[in-house]
Amino acid sequence: MDTTGMALHTDKYQINMMYAHWMNGTHKHKAVFEAYFRTLPFGNGYAVFAGLERIVHYVSNLRFHEDDIRYLSEQEENYDTRFLEELRTFRFNGNIHSMREGAVVFPNEPLVRVEGSIFEAQLVETALLNFMNFQTLIATKAARIKQAADGDTLLEFGTRRAQEADAAVWGARAAYVAGFHATSNMMAGKRFGIPTKGTHAHSWVQSFTSEQEAFDKYAQVLPDGSTLLVDTFDTLRSGVPNAIRTAKKLEERGKRLNSIRLDSGDLAYLSIEARKMLDEAGLDYVKIVASNDLDEHTITELKTQDARIDVWGVGTQLITAHDQPSLGGVYKLVEREVDGMMQPTIKISANPEKVTTPGKKDVYRIIDRGTGKAVADYICFPEEDEPRKGKQLKLFNPLHTYIRRYVKDYEAQSMLVPVFEEGRLVYELPALEQVREYHVSQLNQFWPQYLRKLNPEIYRVNISEKAWKLKQGLIDRYMEETEVPEES
Amino acid sequence: MDTTGMALHTDKYQINMMYAHWMNGTHKHKAVFEAYFRTLPFGNGYAVFAGLERIVHYVSNLRFHEDDIRYLSEQEENYDTRFLEELRTFRFNGNIHSMREGAVVFPNEPLVRVEGSIFEAQLVETALLNFMNFQTLIATKAARIKQAADGDTLLEFGTRRAQEADAAVWGARAAYVAGFHATSNMMAGKRFGIPTKGTHAHSWVQSFTSEQEAFDKYAQVLPDGSTLLVDTFDTLRSGVPNAIRTAKKLEERGKRLNSIRLDSGDLAYLSIEARKMLDEAGLDYVKIVASNDLDEHTITELKTQDARIDVWGVGTQLITAHDQPSLGGVYKLVEREVDGMMQPTIKISANPEKVTTPGKKDVYRIIDRGTGKAVADYICFPEEDEPRKGKQLKLFNPLHTYIRRYVKDYEAQSMLVPVFEEGRLVYELPALEQVREYHVSQLNQFWPQYLRKLNPEIYRVNISEKAWKLKQGLIDRYMEETEVPEES
Repeated sequence: MDTTGMALHTDKYQINMMYAHWMNGTHKHKAVFEAYFRTLPFGNGYAVFAGLERIVHYVSNLRFHEDDIRYLSEQEENYDTRFLEELRTFRFNGNIHSMREGAVVFPNEPLVRVEGSIFEAQLVETALLNFMNFQTLIATKAARIKQAADGDTLLEFGTRRAQEADAAVWGARAAYVAGFHATSNMMAGKRFGIPTKGTHAHSWVQSFTSEQEAFDKYAQVLPDGSTLLVDTFDTLRSGVPNAIRTAKKLEERGKRLNSIRLDSGDLAYLSIEARKMLDEAGLDYVKIVASNDLDEHTITELKTQDARIDVWGVGTQLITAHDQPSLGGVYKLVEREVDGMMQPTIKISANPEKVTTPGKKDVYRIIDRGTGKAVADYICFPEEDEPRKGKQLKLFNPLHTYIRRYVKDYEAQSMLVPVFEEGRLVYELPALEQVREYHVSQLNQFWPQYLRKLNPEIYRVNISEKAWKLKQGLIDRYMEETEVPEES
Repeated sequence: MDTTGMALHTDKYQINMMYAHWMNGTHKHKAVFEAYFRTLPFGNGYAVFAGLERIVHYVSNLRFHEDDIRYLSEQEENYDTRFLEELRTFRFNGNIHSMREGAVVFPNEPLVRVEGSIFEAQLVETALLNFMNFQTLIATKAARIKQAADGDTLLEFGTRRAQEADAAVWGARAAYVAGFHATSNMMAGKRFGIPTKGTHAHSWVQSFTSEQEAFDKYAQVLPDGSTLLVDTFDTLRSGVPNAIRTAKKLEERGKRLNSIRLDSGDLAYLSIEARKMLDEAGLDYVKIVASNDLDEHTITELKTQDARIDVWGVGTQLITAHDQPSLGGVYKLVEREVDGMMQPTIKISANPEKVTTPGKKDVYRIIDRGTGKAVADYICFPEEDEPRKGKQLKLFNPLHTYIRRYVKDYEAQSMLVPVFEEGRLVYELPALEQVREYHVSQLNQFWPQYLRKLNPEIYRVNISEKAWKLKQGLIDRYMEETEVPEES
C-alpha cells in the first residue's frame, strides 16, 4: 500500500539500462515512451482506465533511499559508485500525460505518455505498467458486471481471494470507479472513502447453539442495516424461517431487518422461494443479497431465470479478473534524442501487431455535434492542429486503407491531460466521486452497441495520415536497409 | 509491502462480528478455526504451502492505530466507544499452528490452525486467507513450471503484469520457494535476498542508431553476465549476427557474453537456428534465454520440439497463475467454547464437499519405513496418540468406507508446527534458502506419480475413524433435529 520507498519496485533491467546509459553518457538524452495495450480483455468493447492516482503517488515519492543504494552496491553488476551517487539525488523531472481515471479507452492508443531523460523514463516503466495494467483490468471487469447487474446494488467482496494485499485494496477502488457501490475491504474504505458493507459469516451462526439465537443476537446488536446469512444449515427450512422470526422481533422494536444473504445452492430457485416467504410474512422491504462466485455471466443468467436478487456480492471473479487475469499493457519508446533533436523510433516485429507506431502522439475523442456521440478516437502528432481547429479529418482503417470516411462537424476532446511538467505535479487528483461521475459521462458518449458485453461493435481508433505515413516510411526504410539477397 | 498498520486489511463483517460478540459478552469465548482449501489448482496433484512469513509479520504487528479507530468511529454501525477502546489495546494473544513454507500439502487438511478468543480469531481470517491463498497458488504454479523446465534455470519476470505491487514481490518469493532461481524484481531481491537478473529491453536497442552499436555499448558497460535481446528487428538476420560480433569483440577483451534472449516468434525454430549460428561462431558457451508468455505447457512443448533453450524467463502466466488465478482457501470454525468447555461444531451444506469436519485437528504425514516414501496424510484429534506412538492406523476412504487399509511400520511426521503460543512468536522463521531445501526434501518424500503435472495419482488424505464418526454423528443429529414431515 505504501507508495514511498518504491524505487526498487522495478525490474533489474531498468537499473541495468540506466547504468549502461549513464556509463555511455547518454542518460540525459530525451526520450518519449507511450503505455498502451493491444487487445481488449474479456471480449469487451472498451476498457476503463484506472491506476493514475497510484502512479501519481509513486512518481511524486520516487527516491532511492540509503538502503536501496546499499542493496544496489552489493549487486554482481558492481555498479560504479558515482552512478549510485547519481541515484541518491534522483528525482523524476520529466513530463507525464495520462488518460483520466474512469476514461473509456481502446487498444493501441497511448494511455500514459512519459517524456524525460531516458534515465528517468526507463526507471518508471515497470511500476507504471504494474499499476495501470491491474487497475484498468479490474475497472473493466467491474464495468461488465455493472452492466449485467442493470442498476442493482453491487458489493465488492473479494479480499480473501485477491492476489495479495495491494490487489485487494486497489482492486476495490477500481471496482468503485466503474460503478460498484461498496466494498467489504476496510482498508479501501479508510483510505479512499469507499462505502463499506459487511454481513456476517457462517462462523457467527456456528458460535451459537441455534441459528435462531445467532440471528437474534446479531440483529439486536446491529439492528440497522443488518443482513443475515441464511445458508449455514438449510436455507429454506431453517435460515429463512429463522430470519423471518428475527425480523418480526425487530419490528416490535420499531426496527427493520435490511436483508438476508444467500451464499450457496441454486440462487435462482432459492431467491424466488425466499422472496415468497418474506413477502408472505409481510417483509417485502427485506432485500435479498446473493454471493458465491458471481460474475457478469452468472448475474445475467440469474436475471433471465427471474432470480429475485436485489444486491450482488461479487468476490473472486472480479478481484482477480478470473477469466483473464492480466492486461497486456506495454511501454514503448516512440521518440529519442539524436544530436539534440527528437527523432521518431520504431520497433519492427515479425508479428505486425507488435510493430510500434513511432512519434509522440496525442489522442482526441471525436464527438459528432449532431448526436453528441463519439465517432472515433483520433491519434496524431501534437503539431497537427486539425482536431483542435475543427478542420475536416480523414478517418481510415490502417490495415485496409480504402475504408475511409471524413468527419467535419465535430468536437475534438483531448484525452491526455498533463499530470507532471518537468517533475512538478500539475494535475489535481479528482475526488473519487468525481472519477465515478467522469466514468458515467464517458459511457454516455457511446452508442450502446460499443458498450454491450457480448460481441460489441468495434469502435474506431484511427491514426492520422501523417502518423501512418511516418510509420510506413520507417518500416520501408528499415526493410531496405536489412534486405539481403535470396541466397544468403 | 508494509505489514504494520494492516489491522483494517480485513472484511467489514469481521469487525461487525467482533462487535456483536463484544456487545453480546461472548467475545472472550475460545474458538478454533482451520484454514484449508478443497480443490487443487491447475489439475496438480499437490500444492506448495507459502505465505507463513507474511502471516507471522502481520500477526506480530497487528494493532489498531489511532487513524483506524477514528475511521471505525465514523462508520454507520455507530460502534460503542468502549468497543473502540477495546480495539485500541487489541493484541493477538492466541495460538497458531501452521504448515511450514515449502510443504507439499493437499486438499481438506488444515494448513493453518488458529486458536484464541473468537474476537481475535475472527479478525485475522481475511488477511490470513489473502496471504495464504495467493502465495500458495503461485508457489504451486511455480512448482509445475519447475517440473517442466527439468533442471534448466528459471527466472521470474512478471512484475509488470502482476496484480499490483504486493503480488509482484510476494509472488517472486513464492516462485523462489518452489525452485525458481532468480527474479527481475529488485524489491524482492532487496527484501528477501533472492538473486536478481536483468537483461535489457527493446528500448535499449531503439536508443541507438544501430542494433550493433546498442549491443556493443551494452556489453562494454556490463561485460560480465550480459544478455543481449536479439529480436528488436529481425532475430536471425540482424539480432543474432550482431550479438555474435559483439561476443567476438568481448573475447578480444578476455570477456565472455553470457547469453542472448529470444522474446518473440517461434522459439523452437529460432533457438535451434540461433544455437547453430552461435556454435558455428565458436560461441558454444553463450546461452539462450527465452521469454514470451511461457508456462509449464509451452515449456514442455518446446522441449519436445528440441528447442535449444537454457534459461526460461517466465512472467504473466506464473505471477498471475493465469489459468486459475485464485486458490479457494477457506477458514472454518471447528470448535467453540460452550459453558467453559470446547465443543466441536459443524457447518452443514447441501453441497457435501462444503460440510466441514468438526473438531481441532492435527495432520501427520505417514512415511513408510521401508521405502521412505509418503503413504498418506492422516488427520486426527490431538488427543489421538496412535500416530505419535506408531500404533497401527486404519486408513479408509471417507466417501467409500469399504476402501481401507492398515499401516504399521511407519514414521508419522507432524506437519503443523507451533508458530504463536498465547500471542508469543515461538517459531523461528527459517532463512529462505532453508525453505527451498525443505521444499525439495518434501518433494523427495513422494513417488513420482503423485507429482507429475498431468493426471497425477490422487494422494490419500484420511481422517481418523474417531474424527469421521464425530462428523457423521453431528450430521445425523442435525438432520434429525431439522427433520420436517413430508407435507410441510
